[in-house]
Amino acid sequence: MIEITQEERDAVYKTIYNRRDTRSEFKSDEVDDEVIQRLLDAAHHAPSVGYMQPWDFIVVKDKKIKQKIKDGFEIAHKEATDMFKGEQKEKYKKLKLEGILESPIGICITCDRKRTGTTVLGRTANLEMDLYSAVCAVQTLWLAARAENLGVGWVSIVHHEVVQDALGIPDDIVPIAYLCIGHVTHFKAKPELEEKGWLARMPLEELVHYDTWGNKKLDEKN
Amino acid sequence: MIEITQEERDAVYKTIYNRRDTRSEFKSDEVDDEVIQRLLDAAHHAPSVGYMQPWDFIVVKDKKIKQKIKDGFEIAHKEATDMFKGEQKEKYKKLKLEGILESPIGICITCDRKRTGTTVLGRTANLEMDLYSAVCAVQTLWLAARAENLGVGWVSIVHHEVVQDALGIPDDIVPIAYLCIGHVTHFKAKPELEEKGWLARMPLEELVHYDTWGNKKLDEKN
Repeated sequence: MIEITQEERDAVYKTIYNRRDTRSEFKSDEVDDEVIQRLLDAAHHAPSVGYMQPWDFIVVKDKKIKQKIKDGFEIAHKEATDMFKGEQKEKYKKLKLEGILESPIGICITCDRKRTGTTVLGRTANLEMDLYSAVCAVQTLWLAARAENLGVGWVSIVHHEVVQDALGIPDDIVPIAYLCIGHVTHFKAKPELEEKGWLARMPLEELVHYDTWGNKKLDEKN
Repeated sequence: MIEITQEERDAVYKTIYNRRDTRSEFKSDEVDDEVIQRLLDAAHHAPSVGYMQPWDFIVVKDKKIKQKIKDGFEIAHKEATDMFKGEQKEKYKKLKLEGILESPIGICITCDRKRTGTTVLGRTANLEMDLYSAVCAVQTLWLAARAENLGVGWVSIVHHEVVQDALGIPDDIVPIAYLCIGHVTHFKAKPELEEKGWLARMPLEELVHYDTWGNKKLDEKN
């Protein structure tokens, strides 16, 4: 059996704890194609429901295409600004929320919901499982990128139609994530939104329940 | 800046490539509470949209509660069996698809869609981003578990209402994943569904596009 050693385990935790959403720290240096291929292959080894591997990866380097994504971000960002009120709105406006043009590589991860037909093992009771599989590929790529000392930023403030149109993605394929990827000046010690006082990290114990929702009494139960 | 060394990077890839969905290989040995806490803390360091940390974790050890999940699986599994036809149906019936009772620990990961109010930074154009964040926590926990040499199986063949009812989850909280966790006799060399001929792994190059969907000509473009 392939054992993960304690040192290897610690490397995984180090990577998990030091992963960040990167917006402002991208450097323009090229990323080796070899490294990109390693990230894609890692993502392709994410779990998928019924082994359907519903993902595709579109690697974006073209500046005109990136500009279309950026334009789409600007529209969605303006809409979003209008949804916040008062002090939150002022805070929101000051945040830099993407690095679309600064990062050398964009990767769009999509989900082909019909990749292996309509009846999918494991997706019979929960139809969203294929979308979730594609998200597992996103997080796998993100951790692999951090292990390569590359920053990743997930651009979620853009409408699907814009991404679909900019990248020529067929109508029946669902864009899951548009990621900005590149070398970085540094990784922040804490998530940017925590650092800037947007929200604090919740204490883990508030989020953990034992056997049933709301039950915090581990010792009495076991 | 915290650098990931080449050895550490390789440990991350080793973990990604050797992660499996475990159904038949669980051992009944207890898992240390300390290890469970490490897994939960790792999952709590997944990315989340607007830093909303929408997840909760319900750690299940109670046999009666596990039995309710198992009963729910049996119902959904029977429904699923009827959806497959001919040879596929026979193959499907022979697969063992969960280890709910055999694994010492169940962990349910949920999503609280209103955790930080209704307007969430980064979730304005894409309302599903909070669900996706919770899925990132699932995959983070899964990789951490593999790094601890623990098996994980995602039970997706069960209706949400069953999980909600068995674990007393409030109506407005969305169950994302019910995971079986435990020590294992071994990790399979390949995903079980590949090994058993259900589906093959797709060649990566079929899934990678450059700049626009369908464009495979990396060299000409760069």
